[in-house]
Amino acid sequence: MISVKTLILLLDLAGTFVFAISGAVAGVRHRFDIFGVLVLSFVAGNFGGISRDVLIGAVPPAALTDLRYLLISLLAGLITFFWFSRVDRLRNTTLLFDAAGLALFAVSGTQKALSYGLNPIMAALLGMLTGIGGGMMRDILQAKVPTVLRADLYAVAALAAACVVILGNMLQLPPSVSALVGAVLCFALRLMAIRRGWRLPVAAVGKAKEPEQGVKVGCDQG
Amino acid sequence: MISVKTLILLLDLAGTFVFAISGAVAGVRHRFDIFGVLVLSFVAGNFGGISRDVLIGAVPPAALTDLRYLLISLLAGLITFFWFSRVDRLRNTTLLFDAAGLALFAVSGTQKALSYGLNPIMAALLGMLTGIGGGMMRDILQAKVPTVLRADLYAVAALAAACVVILGNMLQLPPSVSALVGAVLCFALRLMAIRRGWRLPVAAVGKAKEPEQGVKVGCDQG
Amino acid sequence: MISVKTLILLLDLAGTFVFAISGAVAGVRHRFDIFGVLVLSFVAGNFGGISRDVLIGAVPPAALTDLRYLLISLLAGLITFFWFSRVDRLRNTTLLFDAAGLALFAVSGTQKALSYGLNPIMAALLGMLTGIGGGMMRDILQAKVPTVLRADLYAVAALAAACVVILGNMLQLPPSVSALVGAVLCFALRLMAIRRGWRLPVAAVGKAKEPEQGVKVGCDQG
Repeated sequence: MISVKTLILLLDLAGTFVFAISGAVAGVRHRFDIFGVLVLSFVAGNFGGISRDVLIGAVPPAALTDLRYLLISLLAGLITFFWFSRVDRLRNTTLLFDAAGLALFAVSGTQKALSYGLNPIMAALLGMLTGIGGGMMRDILQAKVPTVLRADLYAVAALAAACVVILGNMLQLPPSVSALVGAVLCFALRLMAIRRGWRLPVAAVGKAKEPEQGVKVGCDQG
Repeated sequence: MISVKTLILLLDLAGTFVFAISGAVAGVRHRFDIFGVLVLSFVAGNFGGISRDVLIGAVPPAALTDLRYLLISLLAGLITFFWFSRVDRLRNTTLLFDAAGLALFAVSGTQKALSYGLNPIMAALLGMLTGIGGGMMRDILQAKVPTVLRADLYAVAALAAACVVILGNMLQLPPSVSALVGAVLCFALRLMAIRRGWRLPVAAVGKAKEPEQGVKVGCDQG
Repeated sequence: MISVKTLILLLDLAGTFVFAISGAVAGVRHRFDIFGVLVLSFVAGNFGGISRDVLIGAVPPAALTDLRYLLISLLAGLITFFWFSRVDRLRNTTLLFDAAGLALFAVSGTQKALSYGLNPIMAALLGMLTGIGGGMMRDILQAKVPTVLRADLYAVAALAAACVVILGNMLQLPPSVSALVGAVLCFALRLMAIRRGWRLPVAAVGKAKEPEQGVKVGCDQG
């Protein structure tokens, strides 16, 4: 039997791995060279944790001191680069792993923020940031609006996991229990959102006004 | 009579509130879901202060430890989300509040940077960053070029306020006096810039060369 | 004869200067006002070093405490703004200086990260970040995909210089020797890449799939 700590480490590295793959896939699609693909892998897998660490004052961030995060990100990037068509076909599998990564990052991010003395609400938000930050920076580097700002139930699933951790902390439950419950909740929410197309509401505007100065998403007139 | 400290706190929260509204309006226009709108509210209202705090080593940033900044940002986001058409009609009022927020942020940002021992010139620049940072990140998250880089007299008004605070500090005037003078100056400059369309000059280029790889701003041929 | 330390300082400021020019040129092309041009100068010249310093906990960053970095950046911005057509004609000279700046930043960034106790691999990556960070942020502020992610041998040249510094550190060579060798290597690699059009490979994808939601690079149909 493996200990909870080993379990978390494994899940953490697995999360970095799948997020890194999502970055690498985006890089290959944009025809970045191999360096650009590896940068996007590392950023997608680690930027969430890095910004959390910078914000709570835990510098240098763990992703820069523990080499395993770098190695696993590069591995994900290289696999995607050299076997792109295969990786691209595993879309559903990747979504599963991505949900698992999100769940774990949200939980471990919240616990780390709590241990640095942040108030519970902010710790939950930092947990969410750990989960979604990598994907946001991946999108910014592609000059895209971050998907998480308008996609289906993604950040909310991370936030739910973070809240469970906070609740567990208030009720003085053992951290491993609330981590498990939170992660399972996030994972389940995410799967349901993907299957049933659950989304958050958008505001009612008179008529769908175009953003004044938006990024064109293709150019199909002509 | 309220004390200067209470006054500054009130203005500070008011500044966060109006900047958060500007972020929420942008989010609704982009058809972000409610989560995306709230993120943009928080970012527009707080990113300037957060980056100032990270740069001067005041971590965790005040916006993450004092819950009022979060609550006021969420409030602004929710109001905008549910009463968008009304908020959108108050454009002129919002511009007024925005000018007030800019003035206050520039002043309080400069004073905080000074109190952390930065040299006066850099403290002024950090004060300016506090004022304009939220709006810049709001624009980056929309994959837009930050408006402040090409708009009318905006950052310069913030910088003027910051310089007044620096001058007051050198002349050992009471902080509340230089804060007031600086804020009023910034506010007045901003109003004049809006009314009279004051702008900073752009460089003379042979012919208006297109940026090589710019973001399309619509696509009106076709 | 000038000492190594003076030499490094001169090269460092020269690096900031040429990177700042690259930022200012981009700003003028985008028709930013003078404030926007100066912001882009400062960002392009200093963002790499600033992010390195934030990540290793060296706050406030050197670029905010030593005024020379600000002054040299503003100088570069003003020269570009007022004599744009001349600066724009010196493209080849600028590329040379840019290669020199990259070389120096990579070397000095690595040495600073090492001195803060980072492990050698991460110190090399932070050295590379120091070299390429300014240009990346310059591009993000223009809502562009950072050039370094898909351009010719740029980041790799910086990484090579960083690795030489790391090797020298392991073999306990005098820092000035490994700094010199690393910088010359980076400079030479960069020149060869420009002359011969050396590039890193991009991944083989079935057919050149368009990114789903890419930034349009013009709109030539219609």
